[in-house]
Amino acid sequence: MARLLIIGAGGVGQVVTHKAAQASDVFTDIMLASRTKEKCDKIAKQLKRPIQTAVVDADNVPELVALIKSFKPDLVLNVALPYQDLHIMDACLETGVNYLDTANYEPLDEAKFEYKWQWAYQERFKEKGLMALLGSGFDPGVTNVFCAYAQKHHFDEIHELDIIDCNAGDHGQPFATNFNPEINIREITAKGRYWERGEWVETDPLSWSMNYKFPDGIGYKKCYLMYHEELESLVLNLKGIKRARFWMTFSDNYLNHLKVLENVGMTRIDPVDFKGQKIVPIQFLKELLPDPASLGPLTKGKTCIGCVIKGIKDGKERKYYIYNICDHEACYKEVQAQAISYTTGVPAVVGAIMMVTGKWKGTGVFNIEQLDPDPFLKTLSEYGLPWNEVFLSESK
Amino acid sequence: MARLLIIGAGGVGQVVTHKAAQASDVFTDIMLASRTKEKCDKIAKQLKRPIQTAVVDADNVPELVALIKSFKPDLVLNVALPYQDLHIMDACLETGVNYLDTANYEPLDEAKFEYKWQWAYQERFKEKGLMALLGSGFDPGVTNVFCAYAQKHHFDEIHELDIIDCNAGDHGQPFATNFNPEINIREITAKGRYWERGEWVETDPLSWSMNYKFPDGIGYKKCYLMYHEELESLVLNLKGIKRARFWMTFSDNYLNHLKVLENVGMTRIDPVDFKGQKIVPIQFLKELLPDPASLGPLTKGKTCIGCVIKGIKDGKERKYYIYNICDHEACYKEVQAQAISYTTGVPAVVGAIMMVTGKWKGTGVFNIEQLDPDPFLKTLSEYGLPWNEVFLSESK
Repeated sequence: MARLLIIGAGGVGQVVTHKAAQASDVFTDIMLASRTKEKCDKIAKQLKRPIQTAVVDADNVPELVALIKSFKPDLVLNVALPYQDLHIMDACLETGVNYLDTANYEPLDEAKFEYKWQWAYQERFKEKGLMALLGSGFDPGVTNVFCAYAQKHHFDEIHELDIIDCNAGDHGQPFATNFNPEINIREITAKGRYWERGEWVETDPLSWSMNYKFPDGIGYKKCYLMYHEELESLVLNLKGIKRARFWMTFSDNYLNHLKVLENVGMTRIDPVDFKGQKIVPIQFLKELLPDPASLGPLTKGKTCIGCVIKGIKDGKERKYYIYNICDHEACYKEVQAQAISYTTGVPAVVGAIMMVTGKWKGTGVFNIEQLDPDPFLKTLSEYGLPWNEVFLSESK
Repeated sequence: MARLLIIGAGGVGQVVTHKAAQASDVFTDIMLASRTKEKCDKIAKQLKRPIQTAVVDADNVPELVALIKSFKPDLVLNVALPYQDLHIMDACLETGVNYLDTANYEPLDEAKFEYKWQWAYQERFKEKGLMALLGSGFDPGVTNVFCAYAQKHHFDEIHELDIIDCNAGDHGQPFATNFNPEINIREITAKGRYWERGEWVETDPLSWSMNYKFPDGIGYKKCYLMYHEELESLVLNLKGIKRARFWMTFSDNYLNHLKVLENVGMTRIDPVDFKGQKIVPIQFLKELLPDPASLGPLTKGKTCIGCVIKGIKDGKERKYYIYNICDHEACYKEVQAQAISYTTGVPAVVGAIMMVTGKWKGTGVFNIEQLDPDPFLKTLSEYGLPWNEVFLSESK
């Protein structure tokens, strides 16, 4: 029925391609394109049905336009680098094709996560009668849909939101990052930020933490307050919200390594003079660390990502937790990628299914919580990410 | 009376020049030479009497020979890099001048500390009627003299020796090394080695430790077994010794930083491909860390270096501790360098005084414990490094 162009053949691209190939009743034709054709071909060989592969430089709009014109997809699913979002959106506008991504645009030299650059495309997508779906990964993505679902079914007013992202997996390495170390470390060493009664409050990096008891045998883990991009759209779309925070778990070992690397200057993003050359320390560090892709077969344990929501229903206070549990080894067995990539890639495919089947329709640029959560969550379960919900007592 | 040529204008060169200048009755003419003349001139300006300065590449024997021939020193005092010892010895042989250093020769690409290369000069120095004194710093240096002193005055037989080097100073930086980080880190991350009943026993890096209570209010500090170069000559010169070990204190913070840097590969000494260039990680790390010279004015606290010796005197077992305490701030006030440089530089000058005044005479290559300890220790106290001795009960 539908033709899908996937751009990006990293860990998430791997999962997206596997899952889209499984949805053979929806995606009759699939093309996977990236800067390196070998990566695409390697993934293609793992599949049970044939797909096309192609080379494309996602920074080059004319090249993207030519590829889109030749393959004629119904949707472009972008899982390339966040730096490349705008170029791909430009190419979709020029060719009249719908767009979906999992992470918002970020300028190359700033550690900033803001939707403003992509929201600025609103009128252009409307004028062309096209739809762009932003942030259809897990967080952002499923966490936003969890909020929309809670709002639709369980709350009259949502007052407080805590998105809690726990990776209780262990890759057995002394230190490694689960995705591009440069982006990962920049995100973690940035200042924290949360929403409190109508304004953003800034916190020092990793200065706020809490112990949270996760379900399914994971138990207590220390969680650190960080800024995360879904907060920006959620505080606009959840009417009446008073507080919104994002938390992520880090082990003491991970933070110790990060602290030392910061202390000696290895996380610096400015170039250092070294024997007449300019070296950016964090880029050199990336060269030394294990390739995140190499961690897939080594990682054991689970992830647990969800939302703790407080608010009012029928005049009464209510506290509610909605979450997904995902197992690293099971993911690797299914799609040769661990849970970090799996939990991002599956929702991207589910978002794509919503769009090409017409369950989600519209013109303009959308954040995912603006659309009906019910069909998305139903399909999400069917495609490998079941979810649970629980009402918590207020005394907890 | 004597003319002294000092080669090397780092932290130790700074102390040596100050102290030699103080000994105006011994050293009537002083020249300080290094690769960078500005460094020499900067030190010269701090002094109360004039000295000469010169540029020399200590790897270039003809250049060294020309400099020695023009200045006509009675002694060359080498405090340049350990890689350069042999070139300077060659130049001394060619010009007929006595030689002294503080650290043994080490090949550029191996983390090895062995006297074999310098001991191989024995016959050539003898033939020329010249004297070469090796390792006249603190450790090696004073620690060897402490052993010779104990042997001469307090023991019939020395059975066990523990050299314990404690730096209880604090520079207030998260991580920094007290001398060239490349050499420092290579030394610490190397395997340990100690002498036990006639043979060397190897240990994993930093795998053996003990808590030792240091005098003068320093208290308990954790000490780690390491190999250190003075052990090589001491086990030959202390007849009948059964066990000889070297220990150094490191804070948990220091070792944690080192462990993390090792884990991520930043202490590697092999080149890594980075954007088409070859980068040696430990050399890049050195570029990021604080310049050891910058720590001088920041460092507070004391060093305590000494020898715990067990053996027999008059048929009875005896345990004896001989040590020096040195204060970082007092050193900086006197010579604008902290105690690590001070405790190395002062014994070099004292060794030089022994040689040019004829208190120590001989032809060939000498380790310092082969010479009479009494005049050395007397002069050492007068020049700023007083020492203490204590007889410990055997039950301790």
